[in-house]
Amino acid sequence: MSKIILGIDPGIADTGFGVIEFFSHSKMTSLDYGSIKTPAGQDLEKRLLQLSLELEKIFKRYKPQILAIEQLFFNKNIKTALTVAQARGVVMLFAAKHSLEVQSYTPLQIKQSVSCYGQAQKMQVQKMVKLILGLKVLPKPDDAADALAAAICASSTLKFK
Amino acid sequence: MSKIILGIDPGIADTGFGVIEFFSHSKMTSLDYGSIKTPAGQDLEKRLLQLSLELEKIFKRYKPQILAIEQLFFNKNIKTALTVAQARGVVMLFAAKHSLEVQSYTPLQIKQSVSCYGQAQKMQVQKMVKLILGLKVLPKPDDAADALAAAICASSTLKFK
Repeated sequence: MSKIILGIDPGIADTGFGVIEFFSHSKMTSLDYGSIKTPAGQDLEKRLLQLSLELEKIFKRYKPQILAIEQLFFNKNIKTALTVAQARGVVMLFAAKHSLEVQSYTPLQIKQSVSCYGQAQKMQVQKMVKLILGLKVLPKPDDAADALAAAICASSTLKFK
Repeated sequence: MSKIILGIDPGIADTGFGVIEFFSHSKMTSLDYGSIKTPAGQDLEKRLLQLSLELEKIFKRYKPQILAIEQLFFNKNIKTALTVAQARGVVMLFAAKHSLEVQSYTPLQIKQSVSCYGQAQKMQVQKMVKLILGLKVLPKPDDAADALAAAICASSTLKFK
């Protein structure tokens, strides 16, 4: 018995993704991770379409059952937050299309699930993600590491179900 | 020669839409307008999927070539703004999928295109939309009237091309 969890850290220029397989005996392994990039000069709608098409490829390949994603929060830069929210809308639509169970967490919850406390630095999150998933190298870029952390966070909810 | 313009006023509970046909001799007519509603109790991702499916129906029926939509702006209620932004992401994805030309405008530009000044009240916008499109009744609800106003705004750009 296992579940495939897709963690997503949405954005327009870079959307981090991390796919993990979580086994019923609390073991987990990383199947894939990386960053979906879209070109800066392109119209927003075309970038969102590219994001959507790349998500479809990930779905075809790994057939995730759960989407783990950060809740939207007020950011110092409102323009960035509103753009990220549009990308998140595309991710959420993708989840509903494929009947993925959506688990959303605050940034604090995600950090706590990998590092015991919420004020962890990026490097510390990466180190813990590497350790938990038994990766050979630190997961990069940052948004891929954050996406894996979100997926790990979702797995910790599964454990206690 | 004519162009079909789809105006959208995005939201989660209600997304206003207005479809107009704009003829090369500056005449325009409303083909349809209304509001796409999604149930309040439902998960966000399911509501976004419903919005996406309803947009597809509108596309099939009217084959719009242009999408007219408001730019996102900072709202007093940041939570609402972030939710609307997710719905807008779904609308933008829809536009890119069907190769619609996207025209986005500030709320001020849209109001000015129907009422000569930017501080118009909702009722005044509705009256002007009714007049411009030759409707028999005031367009309702508010978000449908706003969507029609966005479409009219896009038509005024076409005129001078």
